[in-house]
Amino acid sequence: MELNKEIIKAIIKDESRVKFDSAIEEKYQSDTLGRLKGHASALIFVKSTEEISGLLHYAYENNIPVTPRGVGTNLVGSTVPVEGGIIIDLSQMNHILEIDQETMTITVEPGILLSHLQSELATIGLFYPPDPGEKESTIGGNISTNAGGMRAVKYGVTRDYVKGLEVILADGRILNIGGKNIKDASGLSLTNLVVGSEGTLCIISKCLLKLIPAPEKTVSAIIPYQDLEAGIGSVLKILQADAHPTAVEFISRKVVSLGEEFTRISYPRQDAGSYILVTFDGHKEEIEHNTKRVKELAIKTGALDFIALTDEEAADIWKVRGALVKAVEAKSEQEPVDIVVPINKSAEFISFVNQLEEETGLQIVSFGHAGDGNVHLCVVRGTRDAAAWNEVLQVNMKQIYEKAYELGGLVSGEHGIGLTKRNYFFAGTPAINIEVMNSIKASLDHHFILNNKKSYLTGRGEN
Amino acid sequence: MELNKEIIKAIIKDESRVKFDSAIEEKYQSDTLGRLKGHASALIFVKSTEEISGLLHYAYENNIPVTPRGVGTNLVGSTVPVEGGIIIDLSQMNHILEIDQETMTITVEPGILLSHLQSELATIGLFYPPDPGEKESTIGGNISTNAGGMRAVKYGVTRDYVKGLEVILADGRILNIGGKNIKDASGLSLTNLVVGSEGTLCIISKCLLKLIPAPEKTVSAIIPYQDLEAGIGSVLKILQADAHPTAVEFISRKVVSLGEEFTRISYPRQDAGSYILVTFDGHKEEIEHNTKRVKELAIKTGALDFIALTDEEAADIWKVRGALVKAVEAKSEQEPVDIVVPINKSAEFISFVNQLEEETGLQIVSFGHAGDGNVHLCVVRGTRDAAAWNEVLQVNMKQIYEKAYELGGLVSGEHGIGLTKRNYFFAGTPAINIEVMNSIKASLDHHFILNNKKSYLTGRGEN
Repeated sequence: MELNKEIIKAIIKDESRVKFDSAIEEKYQSDTLGRLKGHASALIFVKSTEEISGLLHYAYENNIPVTPRGVGTNLVGSTVPVEGGIIIDLSQMNHILEIDQETMTITVEPGILLSHLQSELATIGLFYPPDPGEKESTIGGNISTNAGGMRAVKYGVTRDYVKGLEVILADGRILNIGGKNIKDASGLSLTNLVVGSEGTLCIISKCLLKLIPAPEKTVSAIIPYQDLEAGIGSVLKILQADAHPTAVEFISRKVVSLGEEFTRISYPRQDAGSYILVTFDGHKEEIEHNTKRVKELAIKTGALDFIALTDEEAADIWKVRGALVKAVEAKSEQEPVDIVVPINKSAEFISFVNQLEEETGLQIVSFGHAGDGNVHLCVVRGTRDAAAWNEVLQVNMKQIYEKAYELGGLVSGEHGIGLTKRNYFFAGTPAINIEVMNSIKASLDHHFILNNKKSYLTGRGEN
Repeated sequence: MELNKEIIKAIIKDESRVKFDSAIEEKYQSDTLGRLKGHASALIFVKSTEEISGLLHYAYENNIPVTPRGVGTNLVGSTVPVEGGIIIDLSQMNHILEIDQETMTITVEPGILLSHLQSELATIGLFYPPDPGEKESTIGGNISTNAGGMRAVKYGVTRDYVKGLEVILADGRILNIGGKNIKDASGLSLTNLVVGSEGTLCIISKCLLKLIPAPEKTVSAIIPYQDLEAGIGSVLKILQADAHPTAVEFISRKVVSLGEEFTRISYPRQDAGSYILVTFDGHKEEIEHNTKRVKELAIKTGALDFIALTDEEAADIWKVRGALVKAVEAKSEQEPVDIVVPINKSAEFISFVNQLEEETGLQIVSFGHAGDGNVHLCVVRGTRDAAAWNEVLQVNMKQIYEKAYELGGLVSGEHGIGLTKRNYFFAGTPAINIEVMNSIKASLDHHFILNNKKSYLTGRGEN
């Protein structure tokens, strides 16, 4: 498994894009949290499909582990080169290759940032709906984790916008899958298999994405409730009402306070126990109709008020929501949780977490996507030393994930399994599902070189 | 490969649901067109997951081919038991198992008919949007072909509504995949792999489907144009206009005449060369806004008129559209084509077909889903004898499919590949894609017992 540096240099004919051993900066050996680190022998900033293909062909023939990465914004250790080997960094493959206004599609390289894609499209009246919280993440990463975000309520997740891909198989062969057709009943959907596969099946080198016409207008409102349960109960009614909200977020008063303190912005109705934030988009008549409908429903189901927001007010309100993780992290290390439960179980799940918080004294900040059951928790370390923190995590996380599975939920709604959620994923997933996933992996990467020991992978030779 | 009848009888303890050899009616050995026939040794009407599991376990251990079927409405030979063996008929597994109004999901057995599902949901204000032309098809079949239909323009296809499945693997093991969660970043999406796999990977025994609130109202309009090109050109503008039509169908005057003669219903504006039929659904304000927008656009892009229809008029207009295939078949055998091309290529594709028709004198009736590029052709046999018909088909179909591929299209938008489209599919699909699909198949069904030699499968031992 010793790397042949000369072969790598022959594939990548630009030495400035190749780093070996101790020349590899630490940040490339970890994820955005930096808690886990690997030790790769080479870090290569690729610029073309052919370079990736050449590297993988060499790695595959020589059983060298490969870890692909975008810009490393993942939260679950996905980009940690846990078995060493080669890191393939795709951040320099960040170009828009084609905008096709007739089919409303865009073709991009995988390293393009979501923020860049969104701003380019805004100039031509087209819209890529998926909107995960981290805008400085790459589209390749978004596809690999099937990233979600706030607008999933109305528009769905990344999977719903990936129409085609160029990918490099583990052995270096180039495969084109999907395309601009709207319907497809022609063979297995390899595109859908790759979406959410966390870099375990292939490396994505081109992405064909579906776009829609940009909505004319976006309007937000904040709905205060007595407590969290009332707020979440109301959400179910809103979702069943055919009122097409774009986003429905919940946030408790206690959590808002953290964000208020951090941003120095105040929410209205400080007497509320919780808030629902709701957004509508579309044309004027549509928004008016839907806002009216949700307002009536909210008041009927116990809301204290329904406050339509001006654009400026909305920007402030969403700023607080967007700053929550940073507000927590400014004070302490935290363990991020990305559990998803069926929409009608989210109140029960959050109540469980709140009760656990009360019983244990462990601070657990909960907020998230009320409209789709994707609950984010920040479990706060506080001043605990390493041993105490590990113990607290072990006991409480087990309970939290067990509760999620009991409710029919999953370990991850949008962050992926990566390295850090594997144990919880294995504990809650039937062995046969894991085995089938590993069989598919083996059929595409016999040597298990790609992102081995990540996500569902039980490891080379162990399945 | 000789069947052991005693073992089968021990698995299915109800002899009325087991037929052997010559007791198997011909219709179970074919598809709805009845052109191709196989010869199975057993036909079994299963009633439970356990029965399917038992049969597959036995078949897998003994390398016995298995052909699953619903009610056999497929058009491409999918249900022909081409290698003999066992036919597993799922039409008696046709129950609704759960309607969950809170998560807006329904769990059904795979043999339930689409018409049954739709009528049950209508009584409770919920809606399953996929709407393939054949309403007497099973949901299991719809999932296996990723069925589309007219409403795909606004609502997407079957894939977009399959949230989870219980499936039986080739070796008889039971696998539960997906679930009621709205987001999922937890391992490979096995559900999406199964959708569209045409019974090659597993047998579906339970289906969890996503529902939406039923639209308040549906309104249709007919838009006459001078010719087909003008009509289809206009469609592109309509789709880019953020006006959310539910369905956009095109139909030429010549083809309308066939339907008019068959149904004795007349279309307005008999001077038109083609028509676009368009439907909108939603609430009143939404429909008004969108209709107005499309009307303006249509007139601006060359429409002769824009005729909003009453419910009764709309029923008549759609009746003619719905009767087209039957109108053709009342006169002659036909070869159905289900090509899909990128939406901006459909005018070019249809022009090509029309020119081929003119040059060759072969009657090719074209109509279809203008809103998604899925073009249905009926190639009409007329009075040709078998030899002449075969020759005509061979020469012309090759040209038609080559043109589709040249335009970036696919063999099938919604019918599937089955048996009859395999050669065209293989001719237009890169060898590596076929190889990857077969590798995945092999990883799940080492013995290639399930629907071998259908769809993408190059056959046991040949890949």
